[in-house]
Amino acid sequence: MPDILTFADICAAAARIAAQISHTPVMRCTPLEAELGAEVFCKCENFQEMGAFKIRGAANAVLSLSTAAAARGVATHSSGNHGAALALAARRRGIPACVVMPENSSAFKKRAVAEYGAKIIYCESSMRGRETALQNYVAQSGATIVHPYNDPLVMAGQGTAALELHEEVPGLEWVLAPVGGGGLLSGTAVATRALRPGCKILGVEPLGADDAWRSLRAGHIEPVAHPDTVADGLRATIGPLTFEVLRTQVDEIVRVAEPAIVAAMRFVWERLKIIIEPSAAVVLAALRERLVEVKGRRVGVILSGGNVDLDHLPW
Amino acid sequence: MPDILTFADICAAAARIAAQISHTPVMRCTPLEAELGAEVFCKCENFQEMGAFKIRGAANAVLSLSTAAAARGVATHSSGNHGAALALAARRRGIPACVVMPENSSAFKKRAVAEYGAKIIYCESSMRGRETALQNYVAQSGATIVHPYNDPLVMAGQGTAALELHEEVPGLEWVLAPVGGGGLLSGTAVATRALRPGCKILGVEPLGADDAWRSLRAGHIEPVAHPDTVADGLRATIGPLTFEVLRTQVDEIVRVAEPAIVAAMRFVWERLKIIIEPSAAVVLAALRERLVEVKGRRVGVILSGGNVDLDHLPW
Repeated sequence: MPDILTFADICAAAARIAAQISHTPVMRCTPLEAELGAEVFCKCENFQEMGAFKIRGAANAVLSLSTAAAARGVATHSSGNHGAALALAARRRGIPACVVMPENSSAFKKRAVAEYGAKIIYCESSMRGRETALQNYVAQSGATIVHPYNDPLVMAGQGTAALELHEEVPGLEWVLAPVGGGGLLSGTAVATRALRPGCKILGVEPLGADDAWRSLRAGHIEPVAHPDTVADGLRATIGPLTFEVLRTQVDEIVRVAEPAIVAAMRFVWERLKIIIEPSAAVVLAALRERLVEVKGRRVGVILSGGNVDLDHLPW
Repeated sequence: MPDILTFADICAAAARIAAQISHTPVMRCTPLEAELGAEVFCKCENFQEMGAFKIRGAANAVLSLSTAAAARGVATHSSGNHGAALALAARRRGIPACVVMPENSSAFKKRAVAEYGAKIIYCESSMRGRETALQNYVAQSGATIVHPYNDPLVMAGQGTAALELHEEVPGLEWVLAPVGGGGLLSGTAVATRALRPGCKILGVEPLGADDAWRSLRAGHIEPVAHPDTVADGLRATIGPLTFEVLRTQVDEIVRVAEPAIVAAMRFVWERLKIIIEPSAAVVLAALRERLVEVKGRRVGVILSGGNVDLDHLPW
């Protein structure tokens, strides 16, 4: 069986998407470094196009379509950052995009997707309602479904953030990334194993949506029936492909409680003066809660995004 | 009469404070560039030590003290960023600092000053109450008063931000800075006149605290009796020294209304993903409101700080 995701796939993605993404800066988290006695390098994907790393995977998938398939467009049912990312990637290629969203999605999320010019189809908020609406659209349009994470091209795109991080910061001993569906962590792990074999790879998940943690312990995918966390980007359940990559490539997954996530988010806003979303804060929460001993180490973290509804802050 | 502030003073300040300040990054404001058809370069002093440019002037003043004077410490009655900056600069030199603050100052402001280890003396909230408390402390301690802006060493320190901006971004045609007491704009103007003589220099002030605008028109200092603006860093009245520099060095002062300030601040949070305070937002408000025609131009703006009480946001 061929590898689901190789380092070559990530390098190809990096070349493919280079003109469409930002080479985001790395910021030292000096206030946290003082607390931990470690060096902490933050890959600031909150400064990425459309505010999150998701454009990397979406752009890689969209740019990999044949001309014929591209003309029929792309579709997804993620209402979060992936929906907006796919809309933007499609607009950049000049092809149609459709995002299926529950009617009760927040105005904030609807606006983000609409801003990039995607067609929005509203559906019931159940998973069944979403999938039915998506299948109907695809049957009629011939659009290609781009899954938010369980897709090797998407995973490869997400791995380009870690690729850039290692290029800019040599000698990392730990790398941390959040886990939702596992696309970012899969790409991060494969890039890190190739570039820096001795580096520990850690996933961080909210306690209230710890399906990846449970699944890796059980040896099979164990969804969480009702994920409940402020980190709305991390409520997704890992898929068969991401599960396989995480199972073989990741050293450990740790879990953080809600108050620690909110506190870490606020810490970054107050001390680093940058906007990160709760899903990005989990990695710093894990460090601040000492869930991993990094004293004296060089640590890289992926700050995954900065899309926050400023009218509904978690404090 | 010797010049109040020369370019050489600013260069000396830059050398003096180099080890104590951050060489802050310049960010392109691409979403605004699209709106304006101009290039907009933001000097991000929100990423500066203690979250604002104020450490530049405070450090220059503190490092310029003789050993004997330094041993007696420094004092001020600014409860805002200057108080925190002076506290930090003093701690770095290992000398005492005292900040006189009204008892009714916000917990947020008290914490910022206390965090850097300054002694806080509480007073009545009137200007007379502040000055009496400060004079009493100085009489007893022999401390040197470091004024937040009406001091050539402080003005010279503030000018180092523009110095860095011009070094990093050649060819600027407009430079904008906020005006409170006028220290930042004075330093910005003198640095810009020296390095880029043809560049226009614009000050931006809230309509509700437009003493600099009024004073330059009147030809003498015209305080605003009850300054009223969300930009709390800009409520100060310009002083005799800053008035003289602004009068001779600045092309124009424009005024922005409160809703435009809040909207510009939110725009930056949402689109650039960085935290700026209302006082920093005024410069972008002036551009967004088209108070100056910069189409096709290269524009530099000083984003003066990012100290915001996250429990009391203006929206």
